[in-house]
Amino acid sequence: MTQGLFISFEGGEGAGKSTQVRRLSQRLSALGREVVATREPGGSPGAELIRDLLVNGPAERWSPVTETLLMYASRRDHVERVIVPALERGAVVLSDRFHDSTRAYQGAGGGAAAELIAALETHCLGKVRPDLTLIMDLPVSVGLARAMGRGGAEARFESKGEAFHEKLRQGFADIAAAEPERCRLINANQTPDELEALIWDLVQPALAAVS
Amino acid sequence: MTQGLFISFEGGEGAGKSTQVRRLSQRLSALGREVVATREPGGSPGAELIRDLLVNGPAERWSPVTETLLMYASRRDHVERVIVPALERGAVVLSDRFHDSTRAYQGAGGGAAAELIAALETHCLGKVRPDLTLIMDLPVSVGLARAMGRGGAEARFESKGEAFHEKLRQGFADIAAAEPERCRLINANQTPDELEALIWDLVQPALAAVS
Repeated sequence: MTQGLFISFEGGEGAGKSTQVRRLSQRLSALGREVVATREPGGSPGAELIRDLLVNGPAERWSPVTETLLMYASRRDHVERVIVPALERGAVVLSDRFHDSTRAYQGAGGGAAAELIAALETHCLGKVRPDLTLIMDLPVSVGLARAMGRGGAEARFESKGEAFHEKLRQGFADIAAAEPERCRLINANQTPDELEALIWDLVQPALAAVS
Repeated sequence: MTQGLFISFEGGEGAGKSTQVRRLSQRLSALGREVVATREPGGSPGAELIRDLLVNGPAERWSPVTETLLMYASRRDHVERVIVPALERGAVVLSDRFHDSTRAYQGAGGGAAAELIAALETHCLGKVRPDLTLIMDLPVSVGLARAMGRGGAEARFESKGEAFHEKLRQGFADIAAAEPERCRLINANQTPDELEALIWDLVQPALAAVS
């Protein structure tokens, strides 16, 4: 039986994560792999309902700790009902955001205690962690301009202001530095084609390791 | 300045908690105390939205761990935005359910790990704990018959079956035994008038201690 592979895409707003998830998904499907392309917050029917509470409304709607708990409620549902079953079938799971987003957004950006976030990782994720995490890095002004340009109603996090987004960019850089085995920090200020090629070069060895 | 007092009402379905919260609230108001009568899950605008996800739908809608996280998301919002400000004003807060319900429903009844629940209490409640907890105890068959009789749409927990409700009744009894200073286990198989008198006898000393 083929072993599953779990890849998370991380980074601030407007970094091109969802485009790259789609492109990688197509490449892997063309090789005959089952791919589950998913996202957080959300990714399962229950988690998508929790997503509605998180991504809509004013920036100060939830405190950082409440937001952390809602994120983990949605993540637990997503893990139990989508990610774990997919990995057990041998699928490649591509998730547009996973646990690093909580460390960066609610932790580094929002100020939720690292001890709370660590306890949630320990007690709510079991052994489920990404095999590979692609952190797409972009200057805050460039990312926010892109995110604003695409419009859409789900703008609660975009609205949190530039100082917040600088802190979360640093948070992601710190995660990449702390876990170099799992994480790759990618300069996302490139064309989608260039990023696709770069990501494919990083994914192939991870795929080979489990095939 | 008068010091606040925090009293939680706990127990299974149909034990008469909301009736007794209302009666105690009236007695305290008549003494000139500011009373904040509230409930969980819910009690603040954000927490009430999370409540909708928790009390409606099929019993297996959320796993015990996801349910624990949703409960704590709603509790954190309730604590930050309603309970703490009320206690700081010197009010008496009467809450129809608080943290013991998570220990009993999601922990003893549902099987969520005690370590997760303890970590959430530590990291999400700060120093906020009830000064007095009234645990209203009733045979499961009596409580469920009463709860079913009152009808209403919010029947997700009632629908979890008698074995579940036996476990949570035992969970509440264990909490009362473990924290006898804070908790009083009350036989709820009495008339509302009898219960009101009994509860008033328990509340008066707690009130005197902070006045």
